[in-house]
Amino acid sequence: MASLPEIQAMKRALELAFLGRKAAFPNPMVGAVILDSSGNIVGEGFHEKCGAPHAEIAALSEAGAAASSGTIVVSLEPCCHYGRTGPCTDAIISAGIRRVVIAMRDPHPNVSGKGITQLESSGIEVETNVLFDEAESLNRVYLHYLRTSRSWITLKMALSIDGRTAAKDGSSRWLSCEESRKHVHRMRGSVQAVMTGGGTVRDDDPRLTSRGSDDPGEQQPARIIVSATGDLGNSRKIFENPGRVIIAVPENVAGSLQKFQSEFGADVWEFPADFSGYGFNLTLLLERTASEGFGEILCECGRGLATMLLRKQLVNTLSVFTTPMILGGEGLPAFEELGIDSMDDSIKLENVRSSLLGTDTHLEGELVYRID
Amino acid sequence: MASLPEIQAMKRALELAFLGRKAAFPNPMVGAVILDSSGNIVGEGFHEKCGAPHAEIAALSEAGAAASSGTIVVSLEPCCHYGRTGPCTDAIISAGIRRVVIAMRDPHPNVSGKGITQLESSGIEVETNVLFDEAESLNRVYLHYLRTSRSWITLKMALSIDGRTAAKDGSSRWLSCEESRKHVHRMRGSVQAVMTGGGTVRDDDPRLTSRGSDDPGEQQPARIIVSATGDLGNSRKIFENPGRVIIAVPENVAGSLQKFQSEFGADVWEFPADFSGYGFNLTLLLERTASEGFGEILCECGRGLATMLLRKQLVNTLSVFTTPMILGGEGLPAFEELGIDSMDDSIKLENVRSSLLGTDTHLEGELVYRID
Repeated sequence: MASLPEIQAMKRALELAFLGRKAAFPNPMVGAVILDSSGNIVGEGFHEKCGAPHAEIAALSEAGAAASSGTIVVSLEPCCHYGRTGPCTDAIISAGIRRVVIAMRDPHPNVSGKGITQLESSGIEVETNVLFDEAESLNRVYLHYLRTSRSWITLKMALSIDGRTAAKDGSSRWLSCEESRKHVHRMRGSVQAVMTGGGTVRDDDPRLTSRGSDDPGEQQPARIIVSATGDLGNSRKIFENPGRVIIAVPENVAGSLQKFQSEFGADVWEFPADFSGYGFNLTLLLERTASEGFGEILCECGRGLATMLLRKQLVNTLSVFTTPMILGGEGLPAFEELGIDSMDDSIKLENVRSSLLGTDTHLEGELVYRID
Repeated sequence: MASLPEIQAMKRALELAFLGRKAAFPNPMVGAVILDSSGNIVGEGFHEKCGAPHAEIAALSEAGAAASSGTIVVSLEPCCHYGRTGPCTDAIISAGIRRVVIAMRDPHPNVSGKGITQLESSGIEVETNVLFDEAESLNRVYLHYLRTSRSWITLKMALSIDGRTAAKDGSSRWLSCEESRKHVHRMRGSVQAVMTGGGTVRDDDPRLTSRGSDDPGEQQPARIIVSATGDLGNSRKIFENPGRVIIAVPENVAGSLQKFQSEFGADVWEFPADFSGYGFNLTLLLERTASEGFGEILCECGRGLATMLLRKQLVNTLSVFTTPMILGGEGLPAFEELGIDSMDDSIKLENVRSSLLGTDTHLEGELVYRID
């Protein structure tokens, strides 16, 4: 059993871990707290970014000699292998730590219980699964990446109560209230990349940057444009604003994008043409985005891309802003056909969060697909 | 300015008024509190039902001689005309009341400021518009009836996040969670009548009674079946359960309903056939329901009747239970075409209330239609 001070220290470790949310990926976010033998906090640390010290090393370094005979409380199982940094288990053993409290095992094949075994075989007491659910939720992007090698997709939508994205004539300004629009800017500021479809870029010429932050040095998310045709019309804003822009297209259409490469320095990613999907296989795209360091991607797109992502079961979180408004059966629907024939096939949301944002309702949850 | 004890007394008067919610209609709900000259509550009353004493009379009767030189705090302007009971203004003047605090004027043509004038001309101090918004909201059914001669329609819907009422194959069990279904039973228990369409009765054979109440003597709402064809199939449950059942049809189809009249004692209301609507003019139906004492009607119906009620601007409150589930573009839509071409034509909700019910979100608001 973890003691009350240890549980408090774990809450702090989870908070510290979250500070790595923008740069830790593809590593997990990890936080660590050192308690001395009297239970006082003598060191804290978190994993800031790939290549930087692990949370345990940062916390041990802050604690110094005070760590001896103490306890380390850490949000993920310490590593036991040589990566870019030495194994944390060695550092914990050398520091004279007596007890290790861990929120969850690291499922990474190089760790996966071996860290715990190594600590225990050195005579250290190990307690696991302390605030497990919180730790699992915190690292959902990392855990998803270990399982699938893909980026985590959060699909954002603005809908009327009757599930319409726009009126019959295509107008949708303003389907969301000001508070909702501000919240979307904060969401953009918390992810590594924002994704949209070529049609949205062509028709709306959006910026998709995070605006209205209090932080003047805020780094803009990369923008990823997914296009089956390579036709981005005369769009400019998405390229002119700060931050990397990537255009993902089937290989047969990349030629038409030279002006965006030469004029704006956009990257063009080509994928084998595949007409069963969105011009190419979106799974390949999300593997590439993950390998280039985009852990979570906020997708703000039209019906076509949203439908294809759902059909391929590639959406992980759905984030819906519902406006108290009716647009009728003639309004444009949220999705095209998804292959849902009966209630049994429906896509369900779990871990649902709901809140009021101005006059809108904001609902988020993780998608649970029917297992085929 | 009203004093703090007077405002507190008005809150109490509004609570008292609400006790009349099931039987006061077509009269308003009214509550009254008498404060003696030291500000102590010496009498309380409310209007229980049509024909029973008015709130002021009940409160004055409880206060007796203590009302002299006191204040009456009442949620609606006292009447000054002879109806089924004598004018309240006379009783207030006779009781020696010095000051009258009123939440809102009664827009009824027989009152409409004349009560206030009569009190003032007797030398009584009158303060109005104390907790006006609360009083207006409390009596929205009465005020709507004065303006339109119609019943107030609350349209209840259960939807997926993407605004679908059922999956492609028509299945919808269970689109709402258990807590939402319990809440619907409480809603049925709080209205005088529940309305549904003939198709729902034919296909689902529902009871539409209020079940699960703690009150064993609970009175069941009347059930009103609206049918363009008179074809109710082999439905039985809606007729077999306690409470009045009314079948509203165009006059040309009433013949087929004799078995429901003779076997179950159902009432059949015939209206002139009108093929521009739902077989007949629904406005006439809602005038008849109001004249028969149904102030608020909870409508639990299919897409056809819901669409027609919205097109005719007859829905007053929309009450939506949204389940965290996606049913896709092939799911059955909430409404058919409503004649909404652009965002300007959208039907908006005001006074929005939102809450979590189990895993569902419950959203209610009053509809604001575009003025043609």
